[in-house]
Amino acid sequence: MRVPRLVEWTLNAYARLETTFARIDGLEGAAGILDWDARTTMPPGAAEGRGEQLAALKVMSHGLLVADETLELLTAAMGDGELDGWERANLSEMARLYARASAVPSDLVEAVEIAVSRSEQAWRAAREAADFATFLPHLRTVLSLKVRVGEAIGQSLGLSPYDALMDGYDPGMSSARVDAIFGTVAPRIPDLIEAALEAQGGAAAAYPGTFPVEGQRRLALVLMDALGFDKARGRLDVSLHPFCGGAVDDVRITTRYREDGFLGSLMGTLHEVGHALYEQGLPAPWRRQPVGKARGMTLHESQSLAVEMQACRTRGFAEFLAPLLREHLGPDASGIEPEGLYKLLTRVEPGFIRVDADEITYPAHVLLRYDLERAMVTGELDPADLPGAFDDGMRELLRVRVPDDRLGCLQDIHWSTGDFGYFPTYSLGAMAAAQLFRAAKDALPDLERSIASGSFEPLVGWMRENVHSKGASASTHAILEKATGAPLGPDAYLAHLERRYVTER
Amino acid sequence: MRVPRLVEWTLNAYARLETTFARIDGLEGAAGILDWDARTTMPPGAAEGRGEQLAALKVMSHGLLVADETLELLTAAMGDGELDGWERANLSEMARLYARASAVPSDLVEAVEIAVSRSEQAWRAAREAADFATFLPHLRTVLSLKVRVGEAIGQSLGLSPYDALMDGYDPGMSSARVDAIFGTVAPRIPDLIEAALEAQGGAAAAYPGTFPVEGQRRLALVLMDALGFDKARGRLDVSLHPFCGGAVDDVRITTRYREDGFLGSLMGTLHEVGHALYEQGLPAPWRRQPVGKARGMTLHESQSLAVEMQACRTRGFAEFLAPLLREHLGPDASGIEPEGLYKLLTRVEPGFIRVDADEITYPAHVLLRYDLERAMVTGELDPADLPGAFDDGMRELLRVRVPDDRLGCLQDIHWSTGDFGYFPTYSLGAMAAAQLFRAAKDALPDLERSIASGSFEPLVGWMRENVHSKGASASTHAILEKATGAPLGPDAYLAHLERRYVTER
Repeated sequence: MRVPRLVEWTLNAYARLETTFARIDGLEGAAGILDWDARTTMPPGAAEGRGEQLAALKVMSHGLLVADETLELLTAAMGDGELDGWERANLSEMARLYARASAVPSDLVEAVEIAVSRSEQAWRAAREAADFATFLPHLRTVLSLKVRVGEAIGQSLGLSPYDALMDGYDPGMSSARVDAIFGTVAPRIPDLIEAALEAQGGAAAAYPGTFPVEGQRRLALVLMDALGFDKARGRLDVSLHPFCGGAVDDVRITTRYREDGFLGSLMGTLHEVGHALYEQGLPAPWRRQPVGKARGMTLHESQSLAVEMQACRTRGFAEFLAPLLREHLGPDASGIEPEGLYKLLTRVEPGFIRVDADEITYPAHVLLRYDLERAMVTGELDPADLPGAFDDGMRELLRVRVPDDRLGCLQDIHWSTGDFGYFPTYSLGAMAAAQLFRAAKDALPDLERSIASGSFEPLVGWMRENVHSKGASASTHAILEKATGAPLGPDAYLAHLERRYVTER
Repeated sequence: MRVPRLVEWTLNAYARLETTFARIDGLEGAAGILDWDARTTMPPGAAEGRGEQLAALKVMSHGLLVADETLELLTAAMGDGELDGWERANLSEMARLYARASAVPSDLVEAVEIAVSRSEQAWRAAREAADFATFLPHLRTVLSLKVRVGEAIGQSLGLSPYDALMDGYDPGMSSARVDAIFGTVAPRIPDLIEAALEAQGGAAAAYPGTFPVEGQRRLALVLMDALGFDKARGRLDVSLHPFCGGAVDDVRITTRYREDGFLGSLMGTLHEVGHALYEQGLPAPWRRQPVGKARGMTLHESQSLAVEMQACRTRGFAEFLAPLLREHLGPDASGIEPEGLYKLLTRVEPGFIRVDADEITYPAHVLLRYDLERAMVTGELDPADLPGAFDDGMRELLRVRVPDDRLGCLQDIHWSTGDFGYFPTYSLGAMAAAQLFRAAKDALPDLERSIASGSFEPLVGWMRENVHSKGASASTHAILEKATGAPLGPDAYLAHLERRYVTER
């Protein structure tokens, strides 16, 4: 029985794997929509049931992935000489996902799920009360479980525990690379901030007035159209925290509106549109297979920031945007003109909160979190000492003193949900964005003029060709190197910051 | 190895089954929300991906249900003497679901899925074009596959193929019972319609004017509150065809609004609220288990019709509703008074379309479909002869001639999706509603006065105690008999029609 089964499997193994992974994609797509619904639509009393639905989906898709059959099929398909390049790349993505998932014992997977769900709740309460002490035991538990996960995966992949965790968010990224890149950036940041503050002089922090939500929503839809967001395969809705989620051919972005200001919502929407364009530009024939997915969080963030930071905080974009604001945002927007708008779009102000940070102080927040989370994972930093270490870092990097833990080490959700290794991708993404935008400008000399006229097709087309359409068929580094001629590095990013915030201010 | 495993299983079998069925419920709840989303929210380009997500959920939940382990656990749990009444009822529901699902070979399940998905598409096009010929081959395919399904289940349960299919919508219902009940009703309908038309005299078909959608929506929410719909565990949205769906603790009903009329939307919403109250009143501790689900489509429809037809097309309800209409629906509603409103709520007009039919012509539509679908399943009616047979039936029962198949045998989706055996539950539900409402009135002498004052708590409380809280712990007939003192029958229903449309007109 054994031999004929293997022979048959060798013949069909790859096709059978595609079926399995398409089914996993169906379950994950279902989870994507349920997660969107939970954050936008779901009535409050449904939370427990929703948790159970999502848990059932996770158990089932994890079960499909780590089934004995998957390993047998992977082994058999490796010997299939008929596979083409994309199929081979797909197979290697499948093997990567299998290796990561199967390395972690299922009781550890379950323990993490339970701990994370409790920890996130505890974090919400602790943040609200600025009370680190009540969160500390949860942080310890989640940290120690995630270290075990990192050890298990690391053992299987030959990585340190922290690198094994980071590899889950950006495959192939390592702390050695991050150290090399951040090591160049870190010493430059304090001086850059100082120079930027000096160059900027005094300026208003926001437009005063009232800006009707309905007009903001209309404007967001106009901008989504201009950027090429395909509304037949996506939506814009409202949630407390903006995000980009959903499923295949169903990319759902969210924003939140405030009547007393519009820039936060608007730039947040543009950020999510950048994420969405990546998802909508992934290679259609591979949409349900691992190779047809986004490469990782660094490239994903590069796409949101290429839109939000590189393209849409420029003088050209301000020229395009100012008349639209006057058209859609009511009488209080009637005096908005491009130069003042550009000043606001590039306003620098050191603060406590990462998600509110401007482009030039943002990396300081990330550098600090990277150092702290790695030290916690390696054991060099005891979680009890996190608040003090966080405050020290903020003073050193941003020259501010954290008034309480709510505005300090409790501000982000990531550690409460066990997402150690995620933070670096925010700044790596910013660097990749600068590098890609630089390359796009070189390839498209009219790029900035086209943005000023509201035409994003050249930029998005270039990203589509050089990033989106690659899916996960190559590594982050290979995609960047092919697109820009250089591996991921900080040079274009630092030059961009210097130019925008100091020399061309 | 075998014996200890069985011993262990006997001890834990029931608990393990609860875990399995809770997981199935998680997957089915996920499907419920995805289905809601597809009909209310989803962008059009996502349809194919959504189909793949729903198919993945179905494959996985079906796989859990028919796994060898399920049978072994069921067998082991049957011998567990420690189970209490609800656990035992739950076990018997599990066994029922397993018996139905495992009776059908998986290749037949898959063939039905594929055929139904094609057939539904073909039906939409055929209905649009009033072109039965293009739908006929699909109808043949779906019919023959569903006959095979009915044969397979029927063989396992000792039922005829048609009864086996009907049992899927209303467990325990049989065509012998339906024949006995419908046989009493059918001869009465034509005379009742004639008498009703005569008693009604001439009356306007609708209020003229424009009624703002926002006011209609506000009013719907007011009525939902009055009826006791728990908005923390449900929502009201808009879809092309109203429905009640969703998941555990997340009951989602829909309606559609027209500016030039409000009664259709309003009564449709009340109908769906009736369904929703049943779902929200199911026994909470059993919410994720088979025994905690609604008993079947007859009782489900009884709950929607108890609200829409029994409670809300009364003079008392018109007294409560008229001032609300004046308050919410703008200047064109300013002249609405209870007696005119009551006349509209009980207006009789024979027509072609089942879903637009009034209470008294509705059963004619169902009687006809029941006869036709059963004849197709038994082979007495060739699908090619369906249009003619449909027209003959309409002439006999409603004295109208079907102008084309769009307004005739192509009007309903059910046969295109293979739902043979479903139609009878609409009228059985109407009878159950009349019978239950009669019993509630006997138990609550002030019932009609409380409705006139907008207090639905007595009615809903009675239904909660006598129907909702029973879940699927007893059969439709046992629940009805306990609640009303009699098995399901047509007497209360016929008396109700006679009284409302003839004697008390």
